[in-house]
Formats: sequence, structure tokens, C-alpha cells
Amino acid sequence: MSENIHHTATSTKQINVTRRSSHYCRITFDHPPLNIFGPETIPQLDEVITALETDEDVKVVVFDSAVEGFFLTHYDFLARLEDTTRLPPGPTGLQPLPDMLVRLSRAPVVSIASIRGRATGVGSELALACDMRFASREKAILSQWEVGAGVVPGGGPMARLPRLMGRGRALEVLLGADDISGDLAELYGYVNRSFPDADLDAFVDALATRIASFDKRAIGETKRFADVASLPPDFEIAPEWGVCLASIMRPAAQERIKKLMEQGFHKPGDVENRLGYHVGQLGR
Amino acid sequence: MSENIHHTATSTKQINVTRRSSHYCRITFDHPPLNIFGPETIPQLDEVITALETDEDVKVVVFDSAVEGFFLTHYDFLARLEDTTRLPPGPTGLQPLPDMLVRLSRAPVVSIASIRGRATGVGSELALACDMRFASREKAILSQWEVGAGVVPGGGPMARLPRLMGRGRALEVLLGADDISGDLAELYGYVNRSFPDADLDAFVDALATRIASFDKRAIGETKRFADVASLPPDFEIAPEWGVCLASIMRPAAQERIKKLMEQGFHKPGDVENRLGYHVGQLGR
Amino acid sequence: MSENIHHTATSTKQINVTRRSSHYCRITFDHPPLNIFGPETIPQLDEVITALETDEDVKVVVFDSAVEGFFLTHYDFLARLEDTTRLPPGPTGLQPLPDMLVRLSRAPVVSIASIRGRATGVGSELALACDMRFASREKAILSQWEVGAGVVPGGGPMARLPRLMGRGRALEVLLGADDISGDLAELYGYVNRSFPDADLDAFVDALATRIASFDKRAIGETKRFADVASLPPDFEIAPEWGVCLASIMRPAAQERIKKLMEQGFHKPGDVENRLGYHVGQLGR
Repeated sequence: MSENIHHTATSTKQINVTRRSSHYCRITFDHPPLNIFGPETIPQLDEVITALETDEDVKVVVFDSAVEGFFLTHYDFLARLEDTTRLPPGPTGLQPLPDMLVRLSRAPVVSIASIRGRATGVGSELALACDMRFASREKAILSQWEVGAGVVPGGGPMARLPRLMGRGRALEVLLGADDISGDLAELYGYVNRSFPDADLDAFVDALATRIASFDKRAIGETKRFADVASLPPDFEIAPEWGVCLASIMRPAAQERIKKLMEQGFHKPGDVENRLGYHVGQLGR
Repeated sequence: MSENIHHTATSTKQINVTRRSSHYCRITFDHPPLNIFGPETIPQLDEVITALETDEDVKVVVFDSAVEGFFLTHYDFLARLEDTTRLPPGPTGLQPLPDMLVRLSRAPVVSIASIRGRATGVGSELALACDMRFASREKAILSQWEVGAGVVPGGGPMARLPRLMGRGRALEVLLGADDISGDLAELYGYVNRSFPDADLDAFVDALATRIASFDKRAIGETKRFADVASLPPDFEIAPEWGVCLASIMRPAAQERIKKLMEQGFHKPGDVENRLGYHVGQLGR
Repeated sequence: MSENIHHTATSTKQINVTRRSSHYCRITFDHPPLNIFGPETIPQLDEVITALETDEDVKVVVFDSAVEGFFLTHYDFLARLEDTTRLPPGPTGLQPLPDMLVRLSRAPVVSIASIRGRATGVGSELALACDMRFASREKAILSQWEVGAGVVPGGGPMARLPRLMGRGRALEVLLGADDISGDLAELYGYVNRSFPDADLDAFVDALATRIASFDKRAIGETKRFADVASLPPDFEIAPEWGVCLASIMRPAAQERIKKLMEQGFHKPGDVENRLGYHVGQLGR
């Protein structure tokens, strides 16, 4: 990966890039205490993904977390909305977050999400944009929680989930908006496989090391063919973002988010840990 | 749901609508002894689905059965064929049964099939048109039995099953025409999940109650995006119906249906209970 | 099946056709010791598939193997490349191997792969072109090993695997290039189901016998509708072949294949038995 990947502003650095070898990179979310993803995370992730697109050596990247309990969680609702909306579209013409995710899916590099802790909202969307997902049986929780808060998801899951697990299970994930355990995620195909927590790292590392030993061009060409059969077209993802933003502005969402905030949203504790349960209480 | 939903002709009422709350409805098939679906069921189901399309309050509907052993089973082969063929196409331009099913899938309401007993033929097709399906591990049987009787299915399963479970398993369901247990249905993704019979109702009710507490607009918009990625186009379903009717008229089907009738088809008993087994004996 | 199917040149006969009944055929790969698929296998398989397309009686075919440990394995890298490249395109305009596979998928006959032993490369691709796949839990190994040798697969798996099991698992199979056990193949939907080895034959034979008792026209029409929803278009498969051949010519593949040859590739032994392991060692 080119050097510029190491130049993310250290003052607010939320993503660590570690090079295990010239061919194998770890991208580690490290924004304690919750790995919340906000507008200031966007340029950092963009830098990582731009580097992956152009690096001539890297063949495989593993996304993981340095924060106990959280792989990567929901968007930052404490940030000013303008800090998000003022960001210009990315190279694909999509808004920055969906832009980065579709670019990650198409990058000539194998991306693996190693999920331990919550992958909620943006965290789930990033995992879904990766080529493969593996989860800790005991510690992974996947969730598209948004509908539970009156919000329409915005980073592609309506386009990606049905292609991965079929319409019925995708609609349960999206409209049930509940926490999905590692076991259920495996049954549904939300992740490739779940492993006992003690085995997850060894499995992912062995797979990444294996792929890193293969020919980069054969990897890229094979992936590109599979992309044709498996990636949603960008125009299907494009409208999600605007509808998501519009939904956030509506009273139904504002009231629910306000209630969640009063209960401890965005702070370590039960609301963040069991977000699925808590959104289920808001409208009763 | 608007009041007209309660006005189905009581003389032959086969579908009960119960309002658990303004947001949550149960649609219960109650046509003992077998929950056979015939031409006279069509206007009743149409009334239910039209109401779901326009009701401004309802967010979630659960389809279930009041008949022991049968969720909803095959079409009525004792009814005069003209009673079916004389019905005009529905609003989508499709024939009435596939018309209602595609409208159910697109309704701005979450539909859940709670399957206990046989979901055979039309019963399976209705379940497949719902947004989600949950089954009793011990008591659910799903089946597209038609090919076993020389008949081509007509209500959409060739379009829906491969998208749900992949080509291989879909072709086994369609061309094997056998009874599928709750466990196998879960493995194949024919249903979202199967539960021990004692747990099914509590799970489905909790999920429906949960979704009923969410914002209707966020539900509808999220579902509409997922529809784009997951629903077959109507033109793919459209030709199934005519080919189904034509197949029924052919000697291969007429002879098989006649044999089944002699053995007890359309009456409570082993043929209806183990239809998969019995169609497997017809051509030997 | 018409008689000409029995006229494959006996001197190098690698495929046995057995007629269990007028409606049910077994196609048995019998090219010991490894069931390697080479240019001389192509006309033999073409003859079989042409017969299946035109036979007016046959309803179901089961592909299996007479060779212990191998269902059907990779392409023959000892054969002269010209013996493959000089073969003219088939009736679909595709090159011979992908041509036969897409024709098998569209044939008005139900095709079932009964997998015991390795289904590697071409063997996996043939299984994927079948309508259904069943595997021995203990003895089946599925594998798209190609990327591990610097080669891009050429017989359609990038088009078929994501439609069968979703993008994430398909990319793991393709880019991990590792051996997949019967159990994992079932979890991933790579096969319909895996059975204890002792039960596989009875299950497959009962299913084939069952389907053979059904009406051929109802089978064909139902399958054709499911094809629309589940088969990749030929133009998606078409470019795989040329890219595969080009990849084989590159030094990255040539070096890897040479190393494998030195270790025992194409001979009975550990390299062939555990090809997934061995390709994982080549680039370290």
C-alpha cells in the first residue's frame, strides 16, 4: 500500500493500518469507546480505500477492531448534520459513504471483515461491502438497527442483503432491526462462517496469508468476473442515501433518537450494547 | 385496515381477519377440513390484500391457519375450471392468483407467514409471496407438489424459489415435488427459520409486535428498496399461469389427478397428509 | 437416450452411460486413476450431452464416478494446449467446455451430480452446471483450486457460484481456492445436501427414480421457467474461457504448475488428494 496511507491526521486517528507483509494489510478501527463512525471518519476511510485501489502489492486486507465489544457501529448522531452533508460526492458520483463502500467492493484486493463485537449500521454496511465476512460466535452482533429508530438505512444494505441471503431473511434483518448473533448470521449467510471466538483470529489470518501468497492478477481477474454476477449496480444503491437523510429529519426518527439519547445512546452502556432491544421499546 | 375487510360473505367465509391492534393484523385461513384454496377463496383474499394496500395504519400482517394440519393447501380440483378461468385479471394485469401474490409482496406492509401444517401448492406460493416465513419444526410441511401430478406450478414459485435458495435447491423443491420438513426448509432458506412448535407463536407474535411499533413510512421505504433487489419482475411470473392451466388439461395430469382422487385427494386422510409420498407413486 | 450415446471411442472411453430405465440414465466418469478431464474427454462428454438434449424418453441423469476418491477433477495440464484450443466452438458459440456445461443446464432433462471424492476444477464446474448436487459427507471434496495456481477458472464458476451461495461465500470458494468438505458445501449451498456416505446412493437413486416417474413435459416446462430466474446469461460466462487460457500462459501460473508437477501433480498421491493444501504452499 502506498505510503500516504500512514498519513491520516494523528490527532483524530480512528483507523490503524498495519502491514503484515507487502501483500497483506490489517485495517483496524480504533475509536474508543464505541467505534462510532462519523463525518471525521470518512476522509480517513477514504484514504485507506484509495490506497487499496492503487497499491500494486497488496492482495488482501482484513478489517477488524481494537475496541472491545465493537467492530464498528452506527453513524454519529451527535455530529452536526452539515458536517456530513457538505462532503462532496466521491469518484463514483455517490455520496462519500456509499461511494467508499462500492469502491471497496470493486477494489482489486480481497477484503475480509473479521467481526468481533457489534457491527451495527455503518459497521454492518462496511462488512457487507467486504468480499467476505467471518464472525466470532460468542462476541459478534450484526445489526441494521435503523428502521427501529424510524430511519431508512443509507449505505447499501437493501441492495446487498437480499443478494446475500434472499429476500425473506434480508427483510427480517432490515425490518426487524434486531441484533443478530454470530450463529444466526452464519445460518442466514450474513457472514460466511462464525467461529468460536478463540479460533476466529487464527482462521482469518490463515486465510488472508494464504490468499496473500497467490498471484495478484489471477485474484483480481477472478474477483472482477464474480463482481458481474454479485454486485448491485451503483444506481440501485444511489437513492438510499438521500432517503436515509430525509428519514432522519422526520419527527418519527427525531423523537426516537432523542429518547435513545436520553437513555444513553452514544455512551458506553446498555443502550449501545443491546441496541436491538432498546429500539424495540421506543414505539410502545 | 379499512372496515370493508370484515365484509367477506359470511356464508362461505374462509379467511378471518383479526385486528390485534391498529397496526397489527392476523389473517387466518379457516376453511376446514383441509384449507383448500379455490375460486371462491380468490375474492376473499383479494379483499384482504386490497385493504392491506390502502390501510393507513396497519404495518404488519401475520398469515396463519385455524385448521389443524394445514396452513393452506393446493388449489381446488373439484371446482369447475370455468369458475377460475372466467375471473378477470387483477390490477397488475396478471391473473387473479398471481396478481394478488405480487401485490402482497409489494404492499407497504410487512407480511409474515406463520406456517404450521401443510403449505402445499397455493399455500407455498402465498408463503413465498410474504416478506418472511417462519415454520413449526415438527408440524410444518412445505411443498410444490404440482410436477408430481403432471402439472406446472402457476403462482410464481419458479420465479421466487431460485432467488430465495439458489437454483439447485429450488429445482429440487420444484422437480422433486416432495414434502419438505421444517428443518429442511430452514436449511434451504425456504423459510427464514423453523422453531419448536411450542415456540413458533411467541416468536412470530413478538416480531410482529416489534415491527408494529416502528414507523410505517420507514418500514415502507426500506421494503421498497429491498424489493428492487429481490422481487422477480411481473413479466417473469406472468406466463406461469397459462402454462399451468394448459398442463392441467393434458392427459398426463388428468390421469394422475384422477388416480389421486380415487385414493382420497380432497378428503381428510393419508393422500392429503402425505401428498409428496402419494404423487411419487402415481407414475410407477 | 438415442443409441449413438454408446458409440464413444472405446479405446479411450472415460465416460460410461448406463440406462437404468428408458427414463433414467447414469453417466459415470471412469478415467482412473484420477478422473482427470482433458481434451479427449470433451467429445465424449459432448456426445452424452447432445444425446440428452434430443432423447425423447430420458427425464433424469445422474453423474457419478467409478474412480475411488475422485468424482471428476481438474483439467489435464499434461495435454498439449493446442489439443484444447484447436477445438471449434460449440452450438452456443461458446468454447467446447463452457458450451457443454450451459447446454447441460438448459437440457430438458433433470441432471443430478452425486459427488463422492474430489470435484475439483472442471469437476466442480460440471457439478455446478447440473440442476442439483448431493455429496458424501465424508468423501466429497469440492474445490475451485485454480486461483491457487495463478489460474483464472474458465468453466463458469464466477457466474454460477455467487447466484448459488451469495457473493461472500462464492468469493471464499474462488479466491481461497481451498478444499471444501461435504459439510461446508452443504452449509454454503455449494451442494443441495450432504449425506453420510452410506446413505448417498440410496437417496440419489430414490430421487432420480421418483423424478423419472413424473411427466417429462411438466418437468421440462417447470425447469425452463426456473432457468429464467436462475441461469447466468451465456455472455457472462463467455469471457471466462479466454481469460483462463491467458492466465495459464503467464509465468505466475507456469511456475506454480511446474512446482506442482515436480511434487506429483497428475499422479495419484498427496498433491492430488489434498490439492487445496498444496496450492497454499506454492507462493510462500
